[in-house]
Amino acid sequence: MENLKNISFESVILNDGFWKSKCDINKNVSIKSVYARFEETGRFNAMRFAYKEGDPIHVFYDSDVAKWIEAVAYLVQKEGGYAEEQKIIDALIADMIAHQLPSGYINSYFIQKEPEAIFTKRSEHELYCAGHLIEAAIAYHKATGKRPMLDMMLRYVDCIERAFITEKTAKFVTCGHEEIELALVRLYEYTGVKKYLDMALFFLDNRRPDVDADPLYDSREKSYCQSHLPVREQTEALGHAVRAVYLYIAMEEAAQKTGDKELSAACDALFEDIINKKMFITGGIGSARDGEAFTVPFDLPNLEAYSESCAAIGLMLFALSLQKKRLDSRFADTIERVMYNNLLSSVSMDGKSFFYENTLEVHLASVGKDTALVPSKRRRLPRYQRLEVFDCSCCPPNINRILARLGDFFFSEHGDSLVVNQFGALSLSTEKISLDMATEYPSNGKIKLSGKNSAYSSLLIRRPWWCVNYELSGAEAISEENGYLRVNLPVGEFELSIDFNMKPFFIRSNPKVRENCGRVALCYGPTVFCLERNDNDCELNALSVALDSDFECDFSTDIPMVTARGRIAKPTDSLYNIVTADTDFTQPATLRFIPYRCFANRSPCDMLVWVPYFL
Amino acid sequence: MENLKNISFESVILNDGFWKSKCDINKNVSIKSVYARFEETGRFNAMRFAYKEGDPIHVFYDSDVAKWIEAVAYLVQKEGGYAEEQKIIDALIADMIAHQLPSGYINSYFIQKEPEAIFTKRSEHELYCAGHLIEAAIAYHKATGKRPMLDMMLRYVDCIERAFITEKTAKFVTCGHEEIELALVRLYEYTGVKKYLDMALFFLDNRRPDVDADPLYDSREKSYCQSHLPVREQTEALGHAVRAVYLYIAMEEAAQKTGDKELSAACDALFEDIINKKMFITGGIGSARDGEAFTVPFDLPNLEAYSESCAAIGLMLFALSLQKKRLDSRFADTIERVMYNNLLSSVSMDGKSFFYENTLEVHLASVGKDTALVPSKRRRLPRYQRLEVFDCSCCPPNINRILARLGDFFFSEHGDSLVVNQFGALSLSTEKISLDMATEYPSNGKIKLSGKNSAYSSLLIRRPWWCVNYELSGAEAISEENGYLRVNLPVGEFELSIDFNMKPFFIRSNPKVRENCGRVALCYGPTVFCLERNDNDCELNALSVALDSDFECDFSTDIPMVTARGRIAKPTDSLYNIVTADTDFTQPATLRFIPYRCFANRSPCDMLVWVPYFL
Repeated sequence: MENLKNISFESVILNDGFWKSKCDINKNVSIKSVYARFEETGRFNAMRFAYKEGDPIHVFYDSDVAKWIEAVAYLVQKEGGYAEEQKIIDALIADMIAHQLPSGYINSYFIQKEPEAIFTKRSEHELYCAGHLIEAAIAYHKATGKRPMLDMMLRYVDCIERAFITEKTAKFVTCGHEEIELALVRLYEYTGVKKYLDMALFFLDNRRPDVDADPLYDSREKSYCQSHLPVREQTEALGHAVRAVYLYIAMEEAAQKTGDKELSAACDALFEDIINKKMFITGGIGSARDGEAFTVPFDLPNLEAYSESCAAIGLMLFALSLQKKRLDSRFADTIERVMYNNLLSSVSMDGKSFFYENTLEVHLASVGKDTALVPSKRRRLPRYQRLEVFDCSCCPPNINRILARLGDFFFSEHGDSLVVNQFGALSLSTEKISLDMATEYPSNGKIKLSGKNSAYSSLLIRRPWWCVNYELSGAEAISEENGYLRVNLPVGEFELSIDFNMKPFFIRSNPKVRENCGRVALCYGPTVFCLERNDNDCELNALSVALDSDFECDFSTDIPMVTARGRIAKPTDSLYNIVTADTDFTQPATLRFIPYRCFANRSPCDMLVWVPYFL
Repeated sequence: MENLKNISFESVILNDGFWKSKCDINKNVSIKSVYARFEETGRFNAMRFAYKEGDPIHVFYDSDVAKWIEAVAYLVQKEGGYAEEQKIIDALIADMIAHQLPSGYINSYFIQKEPEAIFTKRSEHELYCAGHLIEAAIAYHKATGKRPMLDMMLRYVDCIERAFITEKTAKFVTCGHEEIELALVRLYEYTGVKKYLDMALFFLDNRRPDVDADPLYDSREKSYCQSHLPVREQTEALGHAVRAVYLYIAMEEAAQKTGDKELSAACDALFEDIINKKMFITGGIGSARDGEAFTVPFDLPNLEAYSESCAAIGLMLFALSLQKKRLDSRFADTIERVMYNNLLSSVSMDGKSFFYENTLEVHLASVGKDTALVPSKRRRLPRYQRLEVFDCSCCPPNINRILARLGDFFFSEHGDSLVVNQFGALSLSTEKISLDMATEYPSNGKIKLSGKNSAYSSLLIRRPWWCVNYELSGAEAISEENGYLRVNLPVGEFELSIDFNMKPFFIRSNPKVRENCGRVALCYGPTVFCLERNDNDCELNALSVALDSDFECDFSTDIPMVTARGRIAKPTDSLYNIVTADTDFTQPATLRFIPYRCFANRSPCDMLVWVPYFL
């Protein structure tokens, strides 16, 4: 532990600019839209215990609504207000408390649908729902000071402790879907009550192959729910990606509280495994639709990318936890990769609709019909168009809550240094410093930092992984430490600028990634770009881009565009054509790229991130 | 109808050379091996009506054995002998006849396992088995003159006529898996009894969406078994590929017998659809594992290619039927494409083991583990290694029978011309001509034709689609007609040579084939080549080939090799790497190609047909 801590969003005010506009849309549109859809689809009805036979209900409804409550709580904490939403939440909590069992048990599905099955089905998300309700209860109590939801959950946690630990009446030991573990560590952090940390450790320590016998998970392989090895021995990210990263967050947080070196080392290994072998260039993780899972190293298919929104959010949160452990810019680099790509692709630019899966290629000719790669019966959701709500609608409220607390990701403290992890137009205001960050990031890599410092001796500014050279003015970099530039910070007023020299560049994959061989991705700063057929009227894979192309950038519109020089394969009548030495079968073409985060915001069309290249 | 007819294998003797060696292995190894495996796996046991509870049995066992009988019959017809095999077959037929029902019904599965379900289950291959038994009975009678099997099947056909047509006691009208239709046309052709043609037409005419209501096929979409439209209205190859081409063969054969122009036109459209939009470069068809089916146009994925051996064989037979209708070299071109690629890839070089699926790429890192593209639970068979027998072992005896009659594909007659469709070291001997074809095809494009002609006025020699230029000596081409070179043939002795100038060349796909964009396939004459990791020790997709490469060919070994110049992407430590303008991230490499038909004959390893290119 290097005396690092993250600075909460409470101290961060987003100013007019990129992130404020995104977070405003989240606040003004997305959160309201998710609420409306959740009312329409009976989620609130079920949680109000108004379920009647035939109504929609599902084991994970409580968690969907919990994440929405958590999102609202962050807004209340930050801005106050939201009286209407608070009224809804307070009434809901009252209904829940009225139906909480004498034991303290509270779950809208099991109480109404299968009371006899309480704590008997490992696969049915019971403790996952409990975990999300705990997170929401903490946030809501912190934001409003209102105790009922927190008290309800403390009673439930006591019930859980009895059923799983002291009396062992539950028919399983660890929940199939992780979440309770990280929630219990947060509850310990919030209340200081050590029992909650002990409970988290109990669930972590018992996640191992010899504990739970569950036919479902045994048939799927125990790695699906990370029960294949004791958690301290896990070094490869395996199984359902959301479950995995939620577990890793709990492991890292618990390790930081207990000083458990083995647990900490496992988290380091798991993070390395993800970012070096199993992460899409967009920050997405979990390659396989089947099991929503991590797969073998370097298996990163584009058309079939699963890359669930919740998994990318989980990776951000895992990196945020790791960022407290050690100064290493790869944590914030990873957060940045997700923030500007997979996180924002998961919500439409108007804030109303969402992707569950974030594909890296759309090929409409293969959609909605039986094809070899994506038979329609295996196709879970239309991945070329966002939807307002899903049957399994975990992602939309997850996006709500992460954007509501986005300020959490920007700053940390390292000893007497202020660490600047992310960049955006914002102000930081704490007892120690008032800092203004002025920037057009991610359209421009120039960042001006100014303000008044009363406590820090230096700034540690992350040098992004993509930055080949930079210019500092108003200060000098004393050193570069694990990807951070150290700059002396005088007490009193300060002003300095840094320019990361943002320009379009190409990325190639490790050649072990079969799908990306012979291809490059265009990036601009942290932003991954893609081709959309809306701007390039042809089979996108028939295009190739010149590696020595000049670029034209137009960032003046809602959907920025970078134009590059390339070629296109001439069409043919025959399926197979002899290549003769004297015939050039390509012709010049202009390739028009847009940010990946903007794809599928116009009419549905083909999209491609990894583009064939030539030199 | 242009007065065309195919010349039977009976008149064709393969001489020492490429095809003789393949057919000798089929005769001496494969047919014996398939017999042994079918005995071991209880197929013969079941057909001898010796099934006991717990023994293996399946609805398609009769068809497996029938194809093996048909293969043996062709060998007997050609060479005589095979006393041992004939004894086995005669005893088997006696057992079957002893258990044939009074109605004439004969099916080892239904009589022993589900007698109450006879003719009630459209999906259960009953008439498919009947069709294969009819084909075998014709071949066996023709070869041996023995009537019992043919008589048994004539009784069964009468039973089928009553159940399906006159008395309509059967609970479905058309069988889910086509085969009976083409068998009935062949039976008509063999016996001259028009009733059998009428029965074929009955089954063809009733294959339409408004006839059979079968929940299984309705849920799969009626196109799975080609019941989505009346057959005369079908213009797109859809559904299960083997079923489809077996249907098309029957349609074309029936059209030729009846002069039905609509049926004939449908076959032309279906053939065009296949070869222009749905055929792998290897001649494989049926892109999707799911449903073993044709998919949307240009959906030809390499790693996931299904490309069943039986489907490719069906395509050969469909083209063989079409070849009788019209002089058009594309029929024989298609046959050649299958012969030298998908047909031979489907059997190991030692003749002992078989591919059910013929993939166009092997990526071992993705095999046997959960990956996004090929989760192991969906993986039907190990496609990187041939097996001696499968649970569903339709392909091995299909390969047996097609190689046993391979001579059928070489010659046809067109008016008073002899048509040379395929090339190989062989002799043709009929009343009209004695012809020797001397060639090292497919290693060399030089072909010497000599002999004594007593009836033909000209030769029509197919100019293969891949032939850019040729040299004729000893004769002159009068004209080129639909892909055939017309050469005058004097009465009496003749000798001429043609050299198709075989050399390595590259093929590119129509750019609508997403998977092959930016890639080429190396071919040499009709032979498609591939890279195997055994010869190229790296991630194969990281290689790229120079379009202007020179080639070195070594055809002196069992596995020929063509060497080309190329590059390889340098390895990287990171998953994603900035491409800087001043760094060449490739280095020179030599690419070693082997014929696709030879892949997976050494240790299991990666394989790649479509290779990235550069210029």
